[in-house]
Amino acid sequence: MQENSLSARAHVQISLAERSYPIVIGQGLLGDVAGYQNLPAASTALIVSNTTVAPLYAAQLQAALKTRYGRVLLTTLPDGEVHKDWQTLQLIFDALLENGCDRKTVLFALGGGVVGDMTGFAAASYMRGVPFVQVPTTLLAQVDSSVGGKTAINHPLGKNMIGAFYQPQLVVCDLDVLKTLPARELSAGLAEVIKYGPIADLAFLDWIENNLDALLARDPAALAHAIQRSCEIKAWVVGQDEREQGLRAILNFGHTFGHAIESGLGYGEWLHGEGVGCGMVMAAHLSQRLGLVDMTFVERLVQLVRRAGLPVKGPVLSEADNAGRYLELMRIDKKSEAGEIRFVLVEGPGSAVVRAAPDALVREVIDACCR
Amino acid sequence: MQENSLSARAHVQISLAERSYPIVIGQGLLGDVAGYQNLPAASTALIVSNTTVAPLYAAQLQAALKTRYGRVLLTTLPDGEVHKDWQTLQLIFDALLENGCDRKTVLFALGGGVVGDMTGFAAASYMRGVPFVQVPTTLLAQVDSSVGGKTAINHPLGKNMIGAFYQPQLVVCDLDVLKTLPARELSAGLAEVIKYGPIADLAFLDWIENNLDALLARDPAALAHAIQRSCEIKAWVVGQDEREQGLRAILNFGHTFGHAIESGLGYGEWLHGEGVGCGMVMAAHLSQRLGLVDMTFVERLVQLVRRAGLPVKGPVLSEADNAGRYLELMRIDKKSEAGEIRFVLVEGPGSAVVRAAPDALVREVIDACCR
Repeated sequence: MQENSLSARAHVQISLAERSYPIVIGQGLLGDVAGYQNLPAASTALIVSNTTVAPLYAAQLQAALKTRYGRVLLTTLPDGEVHKDWQTLQLIFDALLENGCDRKTVLFALGGGVVGDMTGFAAASYMRGVPFVQVPTTLLAQVDSSVGGKTAINHPLGKNMIGAFYQPQLVVCDLDVLKTLPARELSAGLAEVIKYGPIADLAFLDWIENNLDALLARDPAALAHAIQRSCEIKAWVVGQDEREQGLRAILNFGHTFGHAIESGLGYGEWLHGEGVGCGMVMAAHLSQRLGLVDMTFVERLVQLVRRAGLPVKGPVLSEADNAGRYLELMRIDKKSEAGEIRFVLVEGPGSAVVRAAPDALVREVIDACCR
Repeated sequence: MQENSLSARAHVQISLAERSYPIVIGQGLLGDVAGYQNLPAASTALIVSNTTVAPLYAAQLQAALKTRYGRVLLTTLPDGEVHKDWQTLQLIFDALLENGCDRKTVLFALGGGVVGDMTGFAAASYMRGVPFVQVPTTLLAQVDSSVGGKTAINHPLGKNMIGAFYQPQLVVCDLDVLKTLPARELSAGLAEVIKYGPIADLAFLDWIENNLDALLARDPAALAHAIQRSCEIKAWVVGQDEREQGLRAILNFGHTFGHAIESGLGYGEWLHGEGVGCGMVMAAHLSQRLGLVDMTFVERLVQLVRRAGLPVKGPVLSEADNAGRYLELMRIDKKSEAGEIRFVLVEGPGSAVVRAAPDALVREVIDACCR
């Protein structure tokens, strides 16, 4: 991994037991034919995108890929988390089979986390595995979905319940595509950037606080560094725990509360990053009540989350028993074991721990953090 | 791996890079609590079976597992290849989520190849992977699905098109369950046993010829040896090529023609083993026309396939252009590359090769082998 380089071009090499792949970060990458020359040879590439992103960037990617593949197909999915289901996934399999795509076909995920998750799972499952490339077009997908190989779809009874661990061949983070990203989505992406500070790197937390205005202004050099450092930290964690047996769980800081919010409101109501932003606030409060960090640190995190344009108060999911509803939703989280919720908590600034917490204390936090 | 032992009890250890697991073969194993004591600890086990097998054996397995797991659930799927689809797979995910099953839950596949394939893919995908155990109840599943980690469901446009490579923790081949197997299914299983002779072990081909009557009479010692030797050969091949990049393709001897038959008639019309039996005859004829083996060897194989109770003539899939229809179906097979069909052929008795063949020659074989 390379060190800080505050330029608008960066590169992170992900090294895993089975395979290694590069994340390239920079401007004008999506249409740069040179970037695709090391991909495996195949007769066909299939770009999977959605109705929002395809009109903006599919033609540019298609043109670049045509220098490498004889046939470049495009499948456009409906946009939104609500479509991250089997019915939509089938559209990818239909396209592959209707076009007679063989097991060397390379899939390209052009879109945000939903497109990346679905294309990745389709690639993992089609003929038991074909190569795929991530071309994330949201900040959240660039910092979060680029590393770790998690792919999945939702089930009516739970988020990301059906999926696979499957690594891409290459991740292309084009900073130019972030220019068209709605402000709300930019903020949602910053939630996943901020996350790495409290759990792993206090110096990075300082850097984010000092550079938040540049990030919100979409300054390419600031974005390149934020993406690079996030990917580096995530790669360091995942490299030690590819199958999510232990350490990797710390990456879910803010996600236990966040998933409950997303699921309780119905997927798509809050953006994933919004749930994570608010979830970090709640997890920080729980950490404080357990005596792991002081109130100064909690306030510092709350202020940063607020400045990033993210919610710091959770929604009321049940008028009758709001805390009870949160607890119920968190108990069916994948990280739960035999009904015990595993919380990711800040053990001290820059360091995380995964542990259970007394229901009564969790209820206090929920009551205090929801409006 | 152990050597021939002509007893009714055998054991094959499958050694893979990531994990190693045992195949135990014998009588009375299904209800033997001792056999399950080394499985990973969990609060819940879910048995997946079908409407034919569950009434016969689910209670016995459930009783044995209750000594190990606090909760032993049962999901009963509709029976048949026609149900090997996403809709039926969803029933497994529904049961897991409705019962709040966590990522340590152990799945047990109690049934034939369809139940094994679907349970394996569900285990591979549920929360991105939970442990599973194969308890195959057909001869075909015992010799074929026990080794190799192939799991999949069908897509309307192709068989086994969506799946994963995923290894079980344990395979339990109980010879007693074969007593209730319909004769047609026994023959179908023998197709996959016979397969290993021509492609890998001529001595085993001799042994099958000499013991076919005992196998058809369901003699436990003969069955134990046939299953053990088939698993050993398959394990030897798969161990060298877990991800099906090269050598492993020889295991598809008879399958290219066989899949075309299954798919052309509509899944479920012919049993998979019947397609493979007839497909081996067609592949042998193609091998002979390419000058790889002589007609004596072809006749020997045809006679054995016929004695095993399997079809040796292919069905007519199209009155207008039968050979053209076979070719069309074979071109969308997973093993095809850029439209070129990769045939598994007998290169000489006991040795296989994967190669293309001229369409004209393939047409001659189809014309000669279909009634």
